[in-house]
Amino acid sequence: MQPLVSIIMGSLSDLPVMEKAAKFLDEMEIPFEMNALSAHRTPAEVESFARGAEGRGIKVIIAGAGMAAALPGVIAAMTPLPVIGVPLSATLEGRDALLSIVQMPPGIAVATVGIDAGMNAGVLATQMLCLSDDGIRSRFADYRGRLSEKIVKANSQLKELNYKYKTN
Amino acid sequence: MQPLVSIIMGSLSDLPVMEKAAKFLDEMEIPFEMNALSAHRTPAEVESFARGAEGRGIKVIIAGAGMAAALPGVIAAMTPLPVIGVPLSATLEGRDALLSIVQMPPGIAVATVGIDAGMNAGVLATQMLCLSDDGIRSRFADYRGRLSEKIVKANSQLKELNYKYKTN
Amino acid sequence: MQPLVSIIMGSLSDLPVMEKAAKFLDEMEIPFEMNALSAHRTPAEVESFARGAEGRGIKVIIAGAGMAAALPGVIAAMTPLPVIGVPLSATLEGRDALLSIVQMPPGIAVATVGIDAGMNAGVLATQMLCLSDDGIRSRFADYRGRLSEKIVKANSQLKELNYKYKTN
Amino acid sequence: MQPLVSIIMGSLSDLPVMEKAAKFLDEMEIPFEMNALSAHRTPAEVESFARGAEGRGIKVIIAGAGMAAALPGVIAAMTPLPVIGVPLSATLEGRDALLSIVQMPPGIAVATVGIDAGMNAGVLATQMLCLSDDGIRSRFADYRGRLSEKIVKANSQLKELNYKYKTN
Amino acid sequence: MQPLVSIIMGSLSDLPVMEKAAKFLDEMEIPFEMNALSAHRTPAEVESFARGAEGRGIKVIIAGAGMAAALPGVIAAMTPLPVIGVPLSATLEGRDALLSIVQMPPGIAVATVGIDAGMNAGVLATQMLCLSDDGIRSRFADYRGRLSEKIVKANSQLKELNYKYKTN
Amino acid sequence: MQPLVSIIMGSLSDLPVMEKAAKFLDEMEIPFEMNALSAHRTPAEVESFARGAEGRGIKVIIAGAGMAAALPGVIAAMTPLPVIGVPLSATLEGRDALLSIVQMPPGIAVATVGIDAGMNAGVLATQMLCLSDDGIRSRFADYRGRLSEKIVKANSQLKELNYKYKTN
Amino acid sequence: MQPLVSIIMGSLSDLPVMEKAAKFLDEMEIPFEMNALSAHRTPAEVESFARGAEGRGIKVIIAGAGMAAALPGVIAAMTPLPVIGVPLSATLEGRDALLSIVQMPPGIAVATVGIDAGMNAGVLATQMLCLSDDGIRSRFADYRGRLSEKIVKANSQLKELNYKYKTN
Amino acid sequence: MQPLVSIIMGSLSDLPVMEKAAKFLDEMEIPFEMNALSAHRTPAEVESFARGAEGRGIKVIIAGAGMAAALPGVIAAMTPLPVIGVPLSATLEGRDALLSIVQMPPGIAVATVGIDAGMNAGVLATQMLCLSDDGIRSRFADYRGRLSEKIVKANSQLKELNYKYKTN
Repeated sequence: MQPLVSIIMGSLSDLPVMEKAAKFLDEMEIPFEMNALSAHRTPAEVESFARGAEGRGIKVIIAGAGMAAALPGVIAAMTPLPVIGVPLSATLEGRDALLSIVQMPPGIAVATVGIDAGMNAGVLATQMLCLSDDGIRSRFADYRGRLSEKIVKANSQLKELNYKYKTN
Repeated sequence: MQPLVSIIMGSLSDLPVMEKAAKFLDEMEIPFEMNALSAHRTPAEVESFARGAEGRGIKVIIAGAGMAAALPGVIAAMTPLPVIGVPLSATLEGRDALLSIVQMPPGIAVATVGIDAGMNAGVLATQMLCLSDDGIRSRFADYRGRLSEKIVKANSQLKELNYKYKTN
Repeated sequence: MQPLVSIIMGSLSDLPVMEKAAKFLDEMEIPFEMNALSAHRTPAEVESFARGAEGRGIKVIIAGAGMAAALPGVIAAMTPLPVIGVPLSATLEGRDALLSIVQMPPGIAVATVGIDAGMNAGVLATQMLCLSDDGIRSRFADYRGRLSEKIVKANSQLKELNYKYKTN
Repeated sequence: MQPLVSIIMGSLSDLPVMEKAAKFLDEMEIPFEMNALSAHRTPAEVESFARGAEGRGIKVIIAGAGMAAALPGVIAAMTPLPVIGVPLSATLEGRDALLSIVQMPPGIAVATVGIDAGMNAGVLATQMLCLSDDGIRSRFADYRGRLSEKIVKANSQLKELNYKYKTN
Repeated sequence: MQPLVSIIMGSLSDLPVMEKAAKFLDEMEIPFEMNALSAHRTPAEVESFARGAEGRGIKVIIAGAGMAAALPGVIAAMTPLPVIGVPLSATLEGRDALLSIVQMPPGIAVATVGIDAGMNAGVLATQMLCLSDDGIRSRFADYRGRLSEKIVKANSQLKELNYKYKTN
Repeated sequence: MQPLVSIIMGSLSDLPVMEKAAKFLDEMEIPFEMNALSAHRTPAEVESFARGAEGRGIKVIIAGAGMAAALPGVIAAMTPLPVIGVPLSATLEGRDALLSIVQMPPGIAVATVGIDAGMNAGVLATQMLCLSDDGIRSRFADYRGRLSEKIVKANSQLKELNYKYKTN
Repeated sequence: MQPLVSIIMGSLSDLPVMEKAAKFLDEMEIPFEMNALSAHRTPAEVESFARGAEGRGIKVIIAGAGMAAALPGVIAAMTPLPVIGVPLSATLEGRDALLSIVQMPPGIAVATVGIDAGMNAGVLATQMLCLSDDGIRSRFADYRGRLSEKIVKANSQLKELNYKYKTN
Repeated sequence: MQPLVSIIMGSLSDLPVMEKAAKFLDEMEIPFEMNALSAHRTPAEVESFARGAEGRGIKVIIAGAGMAAALPGVIAAMTPLPVIGVPLSATLEGRDALLSIVQMPPGIAVATVGIDAGMNAGVLATQMLCLSDDGIRSRFADYRGRLSEKIVKANSQLKELNYKYKTN
C-alpha cells in the first residue's frame, strides 16, 4: 500500500523508540515506511527525500534524532508537509535533542513530542490524518475508548491492596 | 466564517505571543477563533470546550500556557483533534512550561512548538490543514517561497559592510 | 473505616513510591484509600473523583505523577481540599514532574513534596489532620520523638570506626 | 485577634512576595502575624519561634526564603505544625531556593509552593484551616467561585479582537 | 582580496556578535567575507555555499546560530573545511544553541566556541591559518604579546585602591 | 602592613563583587592586597604569584573568576595556601563559573562560596585566620553578634505592617 | 588525641564519601572525630555540637549533606569555626545539595567542595591547619610532591600504547 | 615519525574516549603522540609541554578533561597552536566539563567538541591539517565518502522490517 507516513531515523539504534510509532500506525491501519537518514552524514539523501515526499503521496513525516538533533528541522525546511520530531535520549537524557528539535526559528516548525516518545509521534500523525479520513478517525476513537482500561484494572488491584492496611 | 482553528490562552497577558498564531492564520486565510480558558481556574469550561470542538467543525486546537502548563495536555485528553502546545516564558524562561507541555504520557500527545513560538503554532496548524485543502496549500507554498527574501536582503547589506574592512 | 486521605496515582508502576505514603498513614492509624486516575487518560474519572471527594469525607488528597505531571494541579482545581503533589522520577530525574506540579498559577495551589518523596506526602497529610485530631497529633509526636534514633545508632557505629585511625 | 498563621521571611526585601500571602489570609479573614527570622543569622530566634508556635495557637507556618533556603526545613524540624515553604527568586531565578526547600529528607516535610508564589502559600494555609473551620470554608468557596471571572472578562475582550481579522 | 574565511550568520540581528570575528580577522589582516544564510529558511543556498566554499579558496568557515542552531553542523556535513560554530544567546541564554551546535554525531565535527563568543571564533580561525602562513603567525604572536596589557593596567588601578583601606 | 590575604580578580569589571571581600577584611582589620591576574591571559604572572605567595607571608588567597573560571583552581595547584573561589555571574547566571570552580579533582581543592558572594569570601578568609589570631577572632565574634540586628529592625517594621490588616 | 577536625554526616550511607576526608586527615596525622547529625532530624544535637565545638578544641568542621542540604549552613550559623561543606549526590546528581550548600546569604559562609568530594574536604581542612602547624605543613608538602606520580606512571603506559599505531 | 598532533589526557581513565581521537588520526595516517598531563596536579609539566609544543613541530593539540576541566584552556593560554577540547563525562553527565572548556574569555579560544566526543576531536584536527597537506585531504575525502555506508545498510534492514507490518 502507498505509505501515508514516513518514519525517519538516524541509525538502527534508534529503532526501539521509533518502532513504537510504527506499531501504533500499524494498529490504526495507516500504511507507513521507515527510512534511515542523517542530516549530518547523508545530507544529499535527506534533501532528495524531503523534496520528494509530498509528490510520493506522503502526508506526515516523523523524524527521530538525538544529540544536536538537526534532522527534523532540516526536513521541515524542505517540505510543506507537517514534520513530527522525536527527541532521542542518546546523551544528556535527551535534553540536547529536545532543545535542538523544538526551538525552531519563526516560519519553519517541528511538532515536537516528548523525549523518546515514539508512540506519541504515531498518535499525533494519526490525529493529523483523522482530519480527512473517516476510517482512521473511527479506529482512533476506538483506541481512545480503550485508554482507560489499564487504569480500571490498576484500580481493582489497588482496592485489594487497601485491605492489607490496619485502618481499612 | 466557521472557524477551523481554535486558539486558546490562559489570560490576556498571553495575547502578544498567541496573536502571532492568529496573524499567521489570517495571512493564510484560515478562519479561527480565540478563547481564554484555564485548566486550573475554569476546568468545567475547558472540558465543555474540548469535548465540543470537533462537533463545532474545529480541525486544530492551539493552546498556549505558562508555568505548570497543564492546559494543552488536558485539552488533548478530551478531544481527538490534534492539539498544538505553545510554552510561554512567564517563569524560568519557559523551561517549566516546555517540560509541562511536551512530556506527555503515551497515548495523549501534544504537538509542541518552541518557547513563545506563537507564529510557528500557526504554521503547524496550517500544515495540518494543507493535507485536505488545496487553497491553503497554495497560499502556504507562496509563503514558503518568500521565506528567503529577508535573508537575500541581509546579504546585500552584509556585502556593503564587507567593503569597510581593510582586507576587502 | 471512612478514609480521611485519598492517595491517587497514575499507574501501578507508581506504587513503590506512593505506598510509602500509605504506610506512613497506616502507622499513624489514619484511614485512607488508594486510587488509580490519570489526568490525561481518564479525565472524566478524575473530575468525578475530585468533585466528590469532600462530600465523601475525604480531608486531604495525595496525588503522585511523573513527566508532564498535570494530575495534582487538575485535582486541586476541582476541590477545595488541600492537595499534596508527589513528583515522580519517571523521566529527567523527576525535574519535569517537579516543575509541572509546583509552578501553579495564583489561586490554585499544590503542596509539593520532594521528588519520589512518597513518605513525606504522608507526613504532611498527617500534619494537616493533626490540626483537628488529638489522637493523630499524639501519635505524630511519638513518631517525631523516634526520628533521632537512627542517628544515635549511626553515631555509635561511627565511634567504633574512629578507633581504626592512627590519630585516634 | 489570636493569629492562626505565622508568616516568616528573612528580610524586608522578601515582603513584596510574602505580603501576597498576608493579603490572601486577610481576605479570608484569617488572623496572622508576620515575623522576620533567618536560619543563618538568627538561629536561636528561629528555634524559640518554632518550638513555641504550636503552644501560642499558631496552626500553620508560611516561610519564604531565597538562595540556600534552609529556613522552611529548619522550622519544620522543630514543630509538628505544617510548614509551607515559598522559594524566593533572589538568585538563579529561584531554582536554588526551590531545591533547597522541596528536597527534604524522609520524616520532615515542607509543603512547597511555586517560586515567588506568596499568594498560593496563603491559599494552601487557608485550605488547611478549612478542614476545621466552616466560616473559612465558606469564604474560600466564595473565592473559588469568583476565580473564573477574570477569564470570562478576557473572553469578551478576545471576541472583539476576533472581528478585526479578515477571515472573521 | 580572495577571502580565506567565510563568516555566516542567520540574520542581521546576529551581526553585533559575528562582527567581532570580522574585526579580529581584519586586525590579523586575514581577508574574509560575510554572508547571511539559514539552514531552515534557505537550505538550498546553504548547500550551494557549503559545497562550493573549498573550491572558491575558503579555508575556514565561521557560522553563528541561535535557538535550534542547525547551521554550523549542516554546513560541516557538506564541506571538508573546518567549521567554527558560535552559539548565539537569542533564547534560553544560548544553552539551546550551545547544545545544538556542540553535540555533533561521530564523523561530523563543529569547533564550538563560547556563547556569543564571536571574537574567539576569529581567534580560532586565525590559529588554524597560522599553521601554513608565517605572516599571520607573526601578527598573531604580536597580538598574544599584548593580551596582558589590560591586566597590567588593571593592576596599577588596584594598587591605588589598596591605599584607601585602613589596613594598608 | 604585611598583607595576610591576597584578593585576585581577572579584570576591573570584577571589582564590584571582589571589593566586598576587601571591605569585610578591612572591617576585621586584616591587611590584604588586590591584584589582577588571568589564568588565560597572564599565565606566567599567575604562576609567579602563586608560587611566591606563601613566601611573602600571604596566608589565604581569594580568587574571583567568571565563565570557564580556571583561575582559583590553577592558583590552588601551585600553592599550599587555602584558596577561596568566588564564581562570578558574567554569563549563564554564574552557573558555568560555579561548576568550573567547585568541581576540582581529588588532591587540589578550592573553598567555593556562592555566586558573586564576594563578602562571604572575606568572611571565610577571616574564619581561617581566626584559628591563629585572637584579635581577629574577637573582632569576628563582635561582627557575628551584630548579624541579627538587621532582622530585629525588620521585625519591628513588620509589626507595624501587621496593624493595617483587618484581622489584626 | 584531641581531635582538631570534626567530620559530620547525616547517616551511615554518607560514610563512603565522608570517609575519604577521614583517610586524608589520618594520612596527614591530623586527629579527627566523626559524628552523625541531621539538621532536620536532630536539630537540638546539631546546635549543642555547633555551639560547643570551638570550646572543645575543634578547629575545622567538615559537614556532608545531600538533597536540601541544610546541615553545613546551619552549623556555620552557630560557630565561628570555618565549615567545609560536601554536597552529596543522593538525588539529582547532587545539584540540589550543591546549591543548598554553596548559595549562603552574606555573613555566614560555607567553604564548599565538589559533589561527593570527600577527599578534597580533607585537603582543605589540612590547608587551613597548615597556617599554624609546621608539622602538618611539612606532611602536606610531601603529599603535594607525590601528586604528579600517578601522572608520570600514566605517561609511561601511554608511551607504550603509542607504538601500536602505524604512524608511530 | 614526527608527531603532528598531541593528544593530552588527565589520567588513564580518560583513555577509552581519547583513544578514539588516536584511532581516527591513525586511520588518516597522521602521526601523533599521547601524553598524560593535569592542569591541577602537574602544572609545571603542562607549562613546559604547552610552551614547547610548537617548537617540536606539533601542529594541533587535543586535550580531554572532566569536571572543572581547566586543562584545554590553560594549554591554549600558553601556545599559539589551535587547541581542541574534549569535555569528559566524569561527573554531572559532562555538563561541568563542557562549560569549563567552552566558555573561554575573549582572546584565548578552545575548539570544543561534544561530550566524550573523542573521535570528533580527531576529525577536527584532521580538517585543520588538510588545509596544508594534500595527502591528508585526500584520505579525509575518502573517509567522508564512506560516511553514508552505515546508513545505506540500515536502510536495507529497515526495508525488511517494513514487510512485517500488516499495512505493508
